[in-house]
Amino acid sequence: MTHLGAQITSMAPGCVHIVLAARKEVSQQHGYIHAGATSAIADSAGGYAALTLFPEDCEVLTVEFKINLLAPALGDHLEAIGTVLKSGRTLTVCRMEVYAVRDGAVRTLVANGQQTLIRVNASAPRAS
Amino acid sequence: MTHLGAQITSMAPGCVHIVLAARKEVSQQHGYIHAGATSAIADSAGGYAALTLFPEDCEVLTVEFKINLLAPALGDHLEAIGTVLKSGRTLTVCRMEVYAVRDGAVRTLVANGQQTLIRVNASAPRAS
Amino acid sequence: MTHLGAQITSMAPGCVHIVLAARKEVSQQHGYIHAGATSAIADSAGGYAALTLFPEDCEVLTVEFKINLLAPALGDHLEAIGTVLKSGRTLTVCRMEVYAVRDGAVRTLVANGQQTLIRVNASAPRAS
Amino acid sequence: MTHLGAQITSMAPGCVHIVLAARKEVSQQHGYIHAGATSAIADSAGGYAALTLFPEDCEVLTVEFKINLLAPALGDHLEAIGTVLKSGRTLTVCRMEVYAVRDGAVRTLVANGQQTLIRVNASAPRAS
Repeated sequence: MTHLGAQITSMAPGCVHIVLAARKEVSQQHGYIHAGATSAIADSAGGYAALTLFPEDCEVLTVEFKINLLAPALGDHLEAIGTVLKSGRTLTVCRMEVYAVRDGAVRTLVANGQQTLIRVNASAPRAS
Repeated sequence: MTHLGAQITSMAPGCVHIVLAARKEVSQQHGYIHAGATSAIADSAGGYAALTLFPEDCEVLTVEFKINLLAPALGDHLEAIGTVLKSGRTLTVCRMEVYAVRDGAVRTLVANGQQTLIRVNASAPRAS
Repeated sequence: MTHLGAQITSMAPGCVHIVLAARKEVSQQHGYIHAGATSAIADSAGGYAALTLFPEDCEVLTVEFKINLLAPALGDHLEAIGTVLKSGRTLTVCRMEVYAVRDGAVRTLVANGQQTLIRVNASAPRAS
Repeated sequence: MTHLGAQITSMAPGCVHIVLAARKEVSQQHGYIHAGATSAIADSAGGYAALTLFPEDCEVLTVEFKINLLAPALGDHLEAIGTVLKSGRTLTVCRMEVYAVRDGAVRTLVANGQQTLIRVNASAPRAS
């Protein structure tokens, strides 16, 4: 996420927003933001949303995600929203939405997805 | 893909391999390659595999993909393999596999997914 | 759907509700409704939701769907809600939710998913 | 599965085959087998494949699956193949393929998917 230049702009229980400014490094030849960057901030938003419902020493790992790319990611920035649909003892399921924002106001849903995460002890690398 | 430093290493009809060397920029604090990079090269491998079965002036866009992250992406490089399962007039469906390769030989399946692509005219941005 | 005994209970532009009564034929040994039935009514709800935005002579086919099973489908009936997220010329993307309803009031989200559909001419069998 | 009339025809470690004969009850108006039935036997094949790698008293529950419907399911019967891609302590990931078989020989891949399962104690209903 830091590699991409994204940052968390809102964090509430079960819901996290991440913003990625459109920069040359994350954009394609057509000028829209690369699907890989779109997916990455969606995945991160879901992961952080899951964490908001756990004690501080917990970590989560993405088990899987599915994402539909609905429209070209054209705009001044992208906003990814991760929302917890189900927070279980072991698994968390999140909805992921990504909007492109232009001129500070026009919002277009450019990607929508769903994600499964697994809770792990902070010290363990991956417990699936 | 160029942003990530990945490159195509094999291209056959319906099957494309992409290799991404482990570098600091695409790695996490634990030393393994970031899920975003893993997904991005998987997505690219599927997209290029779809293109191998079309005339030169065609383009494809990712409609959606789903990926399971199976193991930590630890290794000297990742190899993503995109394989066409069904090549239709409008839609193509691909399998995506990502292996981590260590010491030039040990291969671990670190991600597995499935992807739907739509064929577009080379000039159109997105026709979904 | 008729095989399962499900029926449409609400149809608005871009949103369709389908209800399936819990019967022995669609239930498992533990008493909850089978995942196959849950998925089937979710898929149908999305498909009908897509159709509400097309002229009468159109048909849609499911290209793919992904569904998370969140909780045991225990209740008097299941309600599946299909909602169009993006209605394109060729492809439609829907959200699918399934709730279990007990005692006419208690609602539990038992499944959540996402679906891609393709528009076809009413006479053609499958145009992917 | 018994409701649909499907049966296991092959069971090896990490791989299970299930066959569903084309019958009027599981078919659509166009004569091909309903997507709901296709998905259900794919899901079952993956679930049983996961179980082959666990002790007898274990059960698995489907966390989520994603399936692409590639071609009309036309044939004398469908054969679903579930194959374990990763068998972990908690989670199992399977590939699901469904073939339509006509005249005892012609095989067409009609669906392909991917599934995540969670291992549970035999007595617990759902532990996600």
